[in-house]
Amino acid sequence: MEKKPLILVTNDDGITAPGLRALIEVMNQLGDVIVVAPDSPQSAMGHAITLNSTLYCSPITIDEKDIHLEYSCSGTPVDCVKLAVNEILNRKPDICVSGINHGSNSSINVIYSGTMSAAVEAGIEGIPGIGFSLCDYSWEADFDAVKDYVKTITENALKNGIPKGVVLNVNFPKLKKNEIKGIKICRQAKARWIESVDKRTNPMGRDYYWLSGKFVNQDKGEDTDEWALENGYVSVVPVQFDLTAHHTIQDLNTWEFDH
Amino acid sequence: MEKKPLILVTNDDGITAPGLRALIEVMNQLGDVIVVAPDSPQSAMGHAITLNSTLYCSPITIDEKDIHLEYSCSGTPVDCVKLAVNEILNRKPDICVSGINHGSNSSINVIYSGTMSAAVEAGIEGIPGIGFSLCDYSWEADFDAVKDYVKTITENALKNGIPKGVVLNVNFPKLKKNEIKGIKICRQAKARWIESVDKRTNPMGRDYYWLSGKFVNQDKGEDTDEWALENGYVSVVPVQFDLTAHHTIQDLNTWEFDH
Repeated sequence: MEKKPLILVTNDDGITAPGLRALIEVMNQLGDVIVVAPDSPQSAMGHAITLNSTLYCSPITIDEKDIHLEYSCSGTPVDCVKLAVNEILNRKPDICVSGINHGSNSSINVIYSGTMSAAVEAGIEGIPGIGFSLCDYSWEADFDAVKDYVKTITENALKNGIPKGVVLNVNFPKLKKNEIKGIKICRQAKARWIESVDKRTNPMGRDYYWLSGKFVNQDKGEDTDEWALENGYVSVVPVQFDLTAHHTIQDLNTWEFDH
Repeated sequence: MEKKPLILVTNDDGITAPGLRALIEVMNQLGDVIVVAPDSPQSAMGHAITLNSTLYCSPITIDEKDIHLEYSCSGTPVDCVKLAVNEILNRKPDICVSGINHGSNSSINVIYSGTMSAAVEAGIEGIPGIGFSLCDYSWEADFDAVKDYVKTITENALKNGIPKGVVLNVNFPKLKKNEIKGIKICRQAKARWIESVDKRTNPMGRDYYWLSGKFVNQDKGEDTDEWALENGYVSVVPVQFDLTAHHTIQDLNTWEFDH
């Protein structure tokens, strides 16, 4: 009998998030599952790691029916991957999947995303990594609609491997299952948040701020993740962690550094 | 008289860090300086932002002799840039410099670095961004040795601009001023941390963990930041925030998604 793949599952919304439970359900059909996920929400944590503080990580049972092992960790999504790979697992996982995030991680959001940082950390450690996100921030989002897509993308990654130095950023549109048109391989759209800062005064008279903002897609391309999502497709962006802008090196070599 | 450039200064080691004070000193020679920096160390915070909590940000005087404005902020380096640009400053800064970090942010460390995330956030907002780091973790590191280089690189960026969609990751070797050989434009070395997890038991009998590790450069290239630093040069890597691995899109289009 062929050995079942070992699948590491994590997220950034925390171990009790419905998106994580949906991802576990799909992964249980594909291999042996180990969950190492944050004990509290860690959205927008980017690639933060815990270096100056202690980490707690304990086995936990969320549902008595579950057959897989789960660990709840006090750290960030990246901490979860590091602890899983270096302490909890006795062999390297065949794949690491993160999500399904409650909310979009398309275009520039990839930079801020704890979900994607977990996948990137896996990639850095030589493990195929995929981050899944649904463009619906609601805790009651309909993850059933996207489970087949999660399965087929993961199956492809297990079968074909993911190109070296790359992880996948998968986003699902907020649509019913029969409304989703298929999967598109995309590039990251050029987009940004136009910030607004909400200034308030606390009961002690001290000013404080809330960050919020409006997402603006500045990219008219039809090969972007934003275009795919707006037009009913699942977007898959290959994300690299060599951040070098190779095409600019020649230009920068014209700078005058003698002084 | 020509208008002086407006320079936003931040870091991730916190507003009292000697590396920040050195950076401010250089920037005061080049333009009008505003400092918005974290009130406590924020190393390894990656691109984390504060969305689910309040932010405090208040004017502070570190040294009575200082002529520039300084603000101390309860958030991450990225929060500092967002608050500065959207709340504190009344015009867009001409450049944002971050650092000088106490410790290396070369090669894969760019991913975890709060210093670099502040520069990247500036880049996303259309502001030229540079992160400076000295390969010396000591609080008493010798920043005098690198001030001339900080100045000449920033002058070049102000004069030539930084290519669109790119920020600069500058690292200095831990050397005396006369031992530094010059500046090299580099690519990010392929390197990683080989983790070790230190498991301990707290006084209440509960296990906890410390993350640590050993940095391993797997890259033999002589055009990398690691090579430059090991050979006595200042490394400058152009860093992009379009993370798309464009060269892999064709390959991924061969995946079979029909089911």
